[in-house]
Amino acid sequence: MATVAVIGDGQLARMMQTSAIELGQSIRLLAGAQDSSAAQVCADVLIGDYTDLADLRRAVDGADAVTFDHEHVPNEHLQTLIDAGVNVQPQPAALVHAQDKLTMRTKLAEIGAPVPDFAAIESVADAETFFERVDGKVCLKARRGGYDGHGVWFPDTIEELRETVTELLDKGVPLMAERKLAFDRELSAMVARTPSGEVKAWPVVESVQRGGICVEAISPAPGLTPQLAGQAQELAGTIAAELGVTGVLAVELFEVDGRVFVNELAMRPHNTGHWTQDGCVTSQFEQHLRAVLDYPLGSTEAMQPVTVMANTLGADTEAEMPVAERVQHVMRRFPHVKIHLYGKSYRAGRKLGHVNVTGRDVAATRREAQLAAHFLTDAVWADGYLAHETK
Amino acid sequence: MATVAVIGDGQLARMMQTSAIELGQSIRLLAGAQDSSAAQVCADVLIGDYTDLADLRRAVDGADAVTFDHEHVPNEHLQTLIDAGVNVQPQPAALVHAQDKLTMRTKLAEIGAPVPDFAAIESVADAETFFERVDGKVCLKARRGGYDGHGVWFPDTIEELRETVTELLDKGVPLMAERKLAFDRELSAMVARTPSGEVKAWPVVESVQRGGICVEAISPAPGLTPQLAGQAQELAGTIAAELGVTGVLAVELFEVDGRVFVNELAMRPHNTGHWTQDGCVTSQFEQHLRAVLDYPLGSTEAMQPVTVMANTLGADTEAEMPVAERVQHVMRRFPHVKIHLYGKSYRAGRKLGHVNVTGRDVAATRREAQLAAHFLTDAVWADGYLAHETK
Ligand SMILES: Nc1ncnc2c1ncn2[C@@H]1O[C@H](COP(=O)(O)OP(=O)(O)OP(=O)(O)O)[C@@H](O)[C@H]1O
Ligand SMILES: Nc1ncnc2c1ncn2[C@@H]1O[C@H](COP(=O)(O)OP(=O)(O)OP(=O)(O)O)[C@@H](O)[C@H]1O
Repeated sequence: MATVAVIGDGQLARMMQTSAIELGQSIRLLAGAQDSSAAQVCADVLIGDYTDLADLRRAVDGADAVTFDHEHVPNEHLQTLIDAGVNVQPQPAALVHAQDKLTMRTKLAEIGAPVPDFAAIESVADAETFFERVDGKVCLKARRGGYDGHGVWFPDTIEELRETVTELLDKGVPLMAERKLAFDRELSAMVARTPSGEVKAWPVVESVQRGGICVEAISPAPGLTPQLAGQAQELAGTIAAELGVTGVLAVELFEVDGRVFVNELAMRPHNTGHWTQDGCVTSQFEQHLRAVLDYPLGSTEAMQPVTVMANTLGADTEAEMPVAERVQHVMRRFPHVKIHLYGKSYRAGRKLGHVNVTGRDVAATRREAQLAAHFLTDAVWADGYLAHETK
Repeated sequence: MATVAVIGDGQLARMMQTSAIELGQSIRLLAGAQDSSAAQVCADVLIGDYTDLADLRRAVDGADAVTFDHEHVPNEHLQTLIDAGVNVQPQPAALVHAQDKLTMRTKLAEIGAPVPDFAAIESVADAETFFERVDGKVCLKARRGGYDGHGVWFPDTIEELRETVTELLDKGVPLMAERKLAFDRELSAMVARTPSGEVKAWPVVESVQRGGICVEAISPAPGLTPQLAGQAQELAGTIAAELGVTGVLAVELFEVDGRVFVNELAMRPHNTGHWTQDGCVTSQFEQHLRAVLDYPLGSTEAMQPVTVMANTLGADTEAEMPVAERVQHVMRRFPHVKIHLYGKSYRAGRKLGHVNVTGRDVAATRREAQLAAHFLTDAVWADGYLAHETK
């Protein structure tokens, strides 16, 4: 059977392994550490540095396809591998659009995809001009390396904008700015695409963010019109095709007055697609493996009317109750909640796991997912349910 | 998080690993070989011999619970481990009933569970007496070590019975006989039970056997009356409690004129429970881990009206088409079929994998599962569908 080499050792690689196992495969991993989320659960692990060409070469040797759980592998190394005949999916020509927010927006504007008004910011003067253009509604972004809201700023005044831009440019951070939208909510449209060009879309989900971090995903996005859902799916498919994306593509969207604007692209399984593990015929992890191997894609039909994913994020201080005990409390109260833990050590704000809950009613399903996800870090039932009742 | 040590390296251990990963755990494995089905996909593998106490000791050191993917670990070794404080689940006191068909039937008769009329066969005279008692309707069985129909004989005449018994007793095979039933079909009632005594039952499935091997499982068993389904579930729960089973228990049943008789017990995940991976909120592999760790059990609700599991068995000669290509044909024709492969080398009659298909219509779902499972070994569509149509 085929071997997929995965560069990166986080939870995405870990969850690819569960899908690989059932397909009769097993992931070859290039990991930073043996105790990393993914390396803990793979048999074929090379410990190395993904910025080191020699390590990359060793990791991909003999693999049928090479893919990633993050966007940080140097493109020049990937190109060297491709030139040597290695099957890298997705390829740097696509990846650049997930690595650089300005490159992405420029390309999307070019293909006619809706993006908020934006500009490169290479000087304070650029920032001032943009500030005028958008009536002061500015969202400033680092072009590269942002994640979970790091690298995004909302200066309220032109003075604050000048200050932030000066400081960041001095530090050598390449910048762009876009119009700050008063959006109604955030959506995520996910598709998978194969090198042969087959594309399959999942239902569009609503993604709930707190402090720049996705905390919840609701599938399908409640109350989304079939028209807008169809548009968002088609948009994601067009972007995948136009940018030459292979594997899973997540298109993060803003919904504003019945229209959508693209905020961000991720070319790998994505937090807003975790619900597919328990709510969909084909999970994003299985689909990603199929896509990078150029296998036919699986059905993206939902298994139940509603699936809610809620992230388990490290709180400021870890609860005293051991995590294995917290897990048992959640299992006892909610026998149908699906717990997914990443084997990561505790850190405030860190994504440690998630839960998926399928159901028929959005409000009830969300409530259960939130309660369960929070208990897994806090050891407290947010609704006042008494701990001894779940003993 | 907790560590479960699994003794055995087959597909059951392999599939426990996929569930363990998502629970934030990872299996500790005692495997016979590094290229075995389970060892291929686990990070923490000890190569050793499960009949060797020293190897067992090393494998279970520090594990929160110890469990099995087969019934062949010597009970005296397990008792030694238990005496040393190791948490073995299920325990030998329960396991004996899955290891010896006569012990099992004697116990079941004692607790009032329905079993076909049976007797120990220690001499040809015993066999003759039993032959008379059941009007020649004899099923002769090796008490220990049978699997997939090996160790089961149906002598048609008293001469044949005498011959077979003489031959087997000479070889030192301990024997029993039971009444050969003209059953309507075979069912499987599966439950999980924790050391604390929580029990949860899955829907009762119909199991289709060919040559003593389970080839298909249909959930729920078509046309089974709610009364009989409830009886079968209750029976399985009673057996689990009375025998002190922990983890998953499969009770294989014969349905005869609206009644059930127990044929066989397995105290581990079972072939007739594979459908739960894709058709049920909680798979038997996750449930087994939860049960042996004494965690609360998960919901056993079905995700769809029908789920069919079909086994992929090695044919007499392997198809020329590489297996990775066969997989792609199946994926192309049936985007919603779930393929599970065990990473095993080809051998005629060997269980190499299975497929699960969920749906609404029993006949259509069975047809798809059978077509897919057969194509995975034969590279032929049994319904004449043309290969080039799935290119
Ligand atoms: N143009 C905008 N207008 C209004 N809010 C915005 C805009 N761009 C970003 N935001 C807010 O900031 C959050 C983080 O932005 P963005 O997704 O670009 O950052 P990121 O660090 O790349 O995050 P991720 O890791 O989710 O990709 C968004 O979820 C949104 O809430
Ligand atoms: N008493 C009986 N009457 C009629 N047929 C029987 C009887 N016992 C067994 N069989 C047939 O033989 C098959 C194999 O029997 P049994 O399940 O006991 O064997 P096994 O080798 O232990 O199989 P498994 O691996 O499925 O547990 C059964 O599935 C059934 O078809």
